[in-house]
Amino acid sequence: MEIRNVKTERRFSAEKMQKVNLFETERMFADIYCLEPGQEQRRHAHSGADKIYLVIEGTGRFHIGDDERDLGPDQIVLAPADVEHGVRNESPARLVLLVFMAPNPNTG
Amino acid sequence: MEIRNVKTERRFSAEKMQKVNLFETERMFADIYCLEPGQEQRRHAHSGADKIYLVIEGTGRFHIGDDERDLGPDQIVLAPADVEHGVRNESPARLVLLVFMAPNPNTG
Repeated sequence: MEIRNVKTERRFSAEKMQKVNLFETERMFADIYCLEPGQEQRRHAHSGADKIYLVIEGTGRFHIGDDERDLGPDQIVLAPADVEHGVRNESPARLVLLVFMAPNPNTG
Repeated sequence: MEIRNVKTERRFSAEKMQKVNLFETERMFADIYCLEPGQEQRRHAHSGADKIYLVIEGTGRFHIGDDERDLGPDQIVLAPADVEHGVRNESPARLVLLVFMAPNPNTG
């Protein structure tokens, strides 16, 4: 059984946002994204692939389509396929996100 | 922006495990599963679809393939496509799970 932990499997870098892969199949992936204050995942879109962000720790400023919102722990949001999305840590504390994406754009 | 909350959007029933859908597309779904003590999702398998369980609250006894493990908050586990899996709340407290599945077996 492949068991991971969303609170302890984190890795930060002063250079840029870090991605820690938890699970990956040809159909989806689950990652932890770790953002120091000021770091971001720039706005982008995925053709035909949906992404879900769950805030594990901290507060993130999310852009999805034309909408911008600050989300905190336990909030979960959908970035639908083909819709531009991004997240920036505008807070003074670290930001940790669980990210789920399907299908997996890295395979197939 | 479609925002939900994994801690507050729960619904229990004395009858059986409750599923609360958070997001659904043709490519995946995200649900909250809510299990009172003694309730379960019986072992089953999905052809060509992967499932991920994240424990939000409580302790669940997971069966995946031939493996059986008790998992608690922040632990996350993969039930790969075509592998038999199930979960039972053997504890005296409520169990809340976040469940991702891809592709969505309810569509397409």
